[in-house]
Amino acid sequence: MARICILGAGSWGTALAVLLVGNGHTVTLWSHREEEVLAMQRTSANESKLPGVVLPREIRYSSQLKEAVKNQDLLVFAVPSKATRETAKKIKDLIPEDQKIVSVSKGIEEGTLYSQTQILEDVLKGALTAALSGPSHAEEVVRRIPTLVVAASKSHDLALLTQELFMNANFRVYISPDLLGVEIGGSLKNVIALAAGMSDGLGYGDNTKAALITRGIKEITRLAVAMGAKEDTLAGLSGIGDLIVTCQSMHSRNRMAGYYIGQGDSAQEAMDKVKMVVEGVYSARAARALGQRYGVDLPIIEQVNRVLFEQMDVRKAVLELMGREKKAELDHCSW
Amino acid sequence: MARICILGAGSWGTALAVLLVGNGHTVTLWSHREEEVLAMQRTSANESKLPGVVLPREIRYSSQLKEAVKNQDLLVFAVPSKATRETAKKIKDLIPEDQKIVSVSKGIEEGTLYSQTQILEDVLKGALTAALSGPSHAEEVVRRIPTLVVAASKSHDLALLTQELFMNANFRVYISPDLLGVEIGGSLKNVIALAAGMSDGLGYGDNTKAALITRGIKEITRLAVAMGAKEDTLAGLSGIGDLIVTCQSMHSRNRMAGYYIGQGDSAQEAMDKVKMVVEGVYSARAARALGQRYGVDLPIIEQVNRVLFEQMDVRKAVLELMGREKKAELDHCSW
Repeated sequence: MARICILGAGSWGTALAVLLVGNGHTVTLWSHREEEVLAMQRTSANESKLPGVVLPREIRYSSQLKEAVKNQDLLVFAVPSKATRETAKKIKDLIPEDQKIVSVSKGIEEGTLYSQTQILEDVLKGALTAALSGPSHAEEVVRRIPTLVVAASKSHDLALLTQELFMNANFRVYISPDLLGVEIGGSLKNVIALAAGMSDGLGYGDNTKAALITRGIKEITRLAVAMGAKEDTLAGLSGIGDLIVTCQSMHSRNRMAGYYIGQGDSAQEAMDKVKMVVEGVYSARAARALGQRYGVDLPIIEQVNRVLFEQMDVRKAVLELMGREKKAELDHCSW
Repeated sequence: MARICILGAGSWGTALAVLLVGNGHTVTLWSHREEEVLAMQRTSANESKLPGVVLPREIRYSSQLKEAVKNQDLLVFAVPSKATRETAKKIKDLIPEDQKIVSVSKGIEEGTLYSQTQILEDVLKGALTAALSGPSHAEEVVRRIPTLVVAASKSHDLALLTQELFMNANFRVYISPDLLGVEIGGSLKNVIALAAGMSDGLGYGDNTKAALITRGIKEITRLAVAMGAKEDTLAGLSGIGDLIVTCQSMHSRNRMAGYYIGQGDSAQEAMDKVKMVVEGVYSARAARALGQRYGVDLPIIEQVNRVLFEQMDVRKAVLELMGREKKAELDHCSW
C-alpha cells in the first residue's frame, strides 16, 4: 500500500481521497484553506463540494503543505488549473527531485500554453508526471458508479503504478503513453461543453448537441494531432468520452455556464451563478491561441471565444456554425 | 424542384416529408396501411408517430405503391429495415432501372448481413443508392431544431443531389463517399444504445454510459474498418454523433428497450412496452455474426446478445465488461 497526498480538496480531489483510502492506501488530503480542513475533520464531510457524502475516517487532512507532501510515494495534483504553477512553486523545495506526481486537473495555461504536467515539469525539474483523465464525475465515482478512465505518462512504470494504485472493481484504469493527447482532450472538452450548454440554453435539441460534440471532437483532434498527439487518444476516454459526459451532465459546471449564457447571461454572470471555477472560460482563450500557433482551423472554439469575450450574440454564433458552406464530412477522403 | 416519394410513414419518413415539402419539392408519402393514409389525409397529422405536429397540406399521401413510385426523381426508403427487401421486390417492375434511391432506414439483414443499400442493390440491379444518416431525431427535425447529417453514396453526383434536395438553414447535410461506413455506424449504434439503456436501467451513471459509448464506438469502428470502411466516418455524424443522440435521448426506442431490460424485463417484454420496432434487437445478432465473419472482438455487442437471447443476467453482463484484465487504451501504441 502506498502513501499518497492529494493537493486540493475540490470535489474531484475529495472523491479521489475516498477512492484511494478505499483501495487501502494512506491518504492525506491537503487544502490551502484551513477552515475547510477543520470542517472536514469535524464533520467527516465536504458539504459544499460533495454534498451528502460521508468521508471515511481514515483520510488525514492537512492545511500545512510542508507536512502534507513529506515522504509521499505519490502526489496527486487536484488544485484548480489556475493554481497549479503557484502550488508547484511552493512545494519545489519540499519534495525529492524525482517525486512521482499524477495530475488530475485540466486546463491549458494562458501565455505559455502549457498543459498541467508541462507546468509541473517546468517548475519541478526531474519530477515524474502522469495524468489521470476520462469521463468521471466526482459525484458518481464517490458512489461507486462504474467508471472508466485513462492514466497517461511518458513513463511506462508510472502509468502502471497509477493504474495499480487507483484501479478497483468500479473504477477501471487503462494506461496510455500519449500524455499530451490525454491532457489536450481533457482540457479542450471544457470549451466544447460551453458551446453545448449554450445550445441547450437556446432551447436547441439533442440533434444539435450531438452535432456540436461530433464536430467539436473533430476540431480538438485536428489540433491535438498537429501538436503531436495520437488521433486514437481523442477517440478514447479522455477525448470523446470525457466530452460526452461533460456536455450531457447536469453535474458539469462548464455546460451549466454555457446554458446560462444561452439563456442570455453574460460570461461573468454565468460564472457567478455556477459559483465554482469554470475551467472552459480560461481554456477557450488558450485553445484559440493554440489553434493560431499550429495553424489549425477551430470554428466552434472560435465562436465560443467571440461569445465569451467579444459580445457576440450567442444565437448568431450557433447559426454561423450551421450556415457554413456545403461541405464534405471527411478531410482526406473523396470520390 | 424535384418529385420525391417517401416509402414508409413512420416518424422519420413523415418528418422527412415535412422537411422536403418545406424545401419546395413535390412529395408523396406512401404507407402500406391504407387506414394510416386516410387518417393523415383527414387529420393532417400522424398522431401516433409524430404527436402534436401539423402536417403541411402540400404532402400527398398514397397507399398505392404503383401510383406512388411512378415518375419520381428520387425514392426515399424509410420502411423498417426488416421490410426493405420485401418493399424493394414490390417496386422492382414499377421503376426505371437507374432509379435514384436514398435509404434512411438502419439495420443489417440477418442471414445475408447486408446493409440497407446492399439489399436495395441486390434486388434492384442498376439502382443508384445513397444513405442519409446522423444524429437526427424526427421529433426535433420536424420542429426545425438545428441538425447535421451526412449523405453518403458511391456516386458523387447522387451524394451532391441528396445534399441539394435535403439541406436547408436548420438541416445541414455533409457528403461522404464512405457509404459502407455510414450504414454500419447507423446500424450498429442501435446495439450499443441497448447497452447504454441497460446501464441506465440498472441505475448506473453518466460515467458508465460515457464509457460504454466510448468503448462501443471503438468496437464498431474496428469492425467497420475490417469491412473496408473509413475510420473517420465512425468518428463522424453517422458514427459517434448518432450513437450519442441514440444513447442519451428519451426519444430513442433502443435506449428505452435497454432501460426496461436493465430494470428487469425480458427482451420481449421490453419490446412490447416500447411498442415501436426496436431495430437494435435484430441488429445485435447480425453484428455478432459480422464480428465472427471478420474476426473482430466485439465485447459489448457480445454481452448484449447474451442478455437478449441467452438469458444472461444484465448486471453480470455489465460487470464482466468492467472486470476485464488491466489494459492499455490504444491498440497500436506503446512505450
